[in-house]
Amino acid sequence: MTAARAGGAAFGARPVMLAVGGDSGSGKTTLARGLAEAIGPRRCTSISVDDYHRYDRARRAALGMTALSPDANYLDIMEQHLQLLAIGQPILKPVYDHRGGTFARPEYLRPRRFVIVEGLFPLFSKLSRACFDVTVFADPPEELRHRWKIHRDTTSRGYTEAEVRRELARREPDSAAYIRPQRRFADIVVRFAPALDGFDPPGAPSTAELLLRPTVRHPPLTHLLTAGAALDLNVVRDEDGTPVDCVRVHGRAGAEQARLLARGLWDSAGSGREIPRGLGRLADGAHSEPLAITQEMLLFHLMQEVYQR
Amino acid sequence: MTAARAGGAAFGARPVMLAVGGDSGSGKTTLARGLAEAIGPRRCTSISVDDYHRYDRARRAALGMTALSPDANYLDIMEQHLQLLAIGQPILKPVYDHRGGTFARPEYLRPRRFVIVEGLFPLFSKLSRACFDVTVFADPPEELRHRWKIHRDTTSRGYTEAEVRRELARREPDSAAYIRPQRRFADIVVRFAPALDGFDPPGAPSTAELLLRPTVRHPPLTHLLTAGAALDLNVVRDEDGTPVDCVRVHGRAGAEQARLLARGLWDSAGSGREIPRGLGRLADGAHSEPLAITQEMLLFHLMQEVYQR
Repeated sequence: MTAARAGGAAFGARPVMLAVGGDSGSGKTTLARGLAEAIGPRRCTSISVDDYHRYDRARRAALGMTALSPDANYLDIMEQHLQLLAIGQPILKPVYDHRGGTFARPEYLRPRRFVIVEGLFPLFSKLSRACFDVTVFADPPEELRHRWKIHRDTTSRGYTEAEVRRELARREPDSAAYIRPQRRFADIVVRFAPALDGFDPPGAPSTAELLLRPTVRHPPLTHLLTAGAALDLNVVRDEDGTPVDCVRVHGRAGAEQARLLARGLWDSAGSGREIPRGLGRLADGAHSEPLAITQEMLLFHLMQEVYQR
Repeated sequence: MTAARAGGAAFGARPVMLAVGGDSGSGKTTLARGLAEAIGPRRCTSISVDDYHRYDRARRAALGMTALSPDANYLDIMEQHLQLLAIGQPILKPVYDHRGGTFARPEYLRPRRFVIVEGLFPLFSKLSRACFDVTVFADPPEELRHRWKIHRDTTSRGYTEAEVRRELARREPDSAAYIRPQRRFADIVVRFAPALDGFDPPGAPSTAELLLRPTVRHPPLTHLLTAGAALDLNVVRDEDGTPVDCVRVHGRAGAEQARLLARGLWDSAGSGREIPRGLGRLADGAHSEPLAITQEMLLFHLMQEVYQR
């Protein structure tokens, strides 16, 4: 492995780029952070693209807009910056202080071998989507997303529950119009939800349901089904009627089953190296095997991009 | 004239770009502002590229660097932004507050038909210079530049004369190493200086001396010499020994002579329109015919670029 591969991308080298889109509170950061940690800070640049706001919070409120409106953002500059990163160029990224609602000093970012981009709009336009090797949309049921967002915003952003609920209601039309439609452009839709089949023991982590669209080459999964009852695979119809592979990783998956699955995925990617540690960590520090396996799937895609180039 | 020509550049249309480089206090802004006003705000984007600092003032001081060191700036991002403007793309430009020495919120800029860029580094690298149709270096004698800078920084930036002199001394090594060498890359070197021939009456504005390098096509000047004693034209040797055209516009040039010269230049550019007003305004509001004629020369080049494309 050359230095350029192991460390920062060489000048002009194309990094492998992953988008994690989804609404506010949908678990994007939890999903992306574990991946970035697994890849390691020397090989991975992680950015949020929720900083391309056209207005500060006070001005946006005065205009009666939400941050989820394309008109409230410099999406052309976001696209430009994603394109620059995709060809290995540095950017001077705006930084929006989500606590104060104002702008901080911009941040110089040089893409490393892997670039993980999360935010509200990375899948919004064709130009933006074209910058990515793999695109993911985090799509929990709305009720669960509301619960997650309320928990985060009341514990770490200083809001009351009533304020968060009001804001969720105020944002709903823009969520429906601009954010949720991005779901249909993702290569992989990730949905964490309480198990529906009634087999999971009480307190088991949520099931992860992954819709795998045939827009990228997914790992061979059928031989992994022998790994146990932790995973099932079906062809289902998506919301719009198109057929799609659906993998369910059950919350009752145990560590041993998860390790077998991970090993299988990892070997499929052609890497002889060790499975990275630290996957599956939830925001509260607890461990979720379905999250770990979801992250393994995404790692598979990132590694595959490296080995196929 | 189409709307795209008259107003903002159409998407992706290449603007005509002028660089005005030079050291701090060399008169770049005075030169550029008159041009921008003559072209008009609807057709002209003016930017300073002295905002690409890597550190705020406190950090720079702690590191013992001056703002004139390339290492104290994100010159790669400056180049990238100039390249984007040159192909008609918008940028999100960093904004450095020169009073407080910290960063303010970035500014969204879309290039109009003409883009005038001034700063310390626009001629520093080949990549940067390649973005411009015409490049100018403001090169007053150091004594005059010091006087101008002291005047500006004590009257409008809140410094004492002693502070400015100390800062000038501290910056001198970087000025010599990084700023003044850019002079040799300019198509036009502009030097305002007290008249040396003794013919100007006391109190007359400075003479403007323009070195015209054969790197761009200059206006036919010989027929303008009949306009009177306001202008002379000679082949001289530049500092490095290379032959170069030298136009001197004398401080004693009167308004009538200046108008004749301007008309001649304007007609050479192929424009049938009126000579723009407001050229030649010094920072203190006084009028200088040599400055006006210098600005006319630069306008000639900008218009020529439009009509030759």
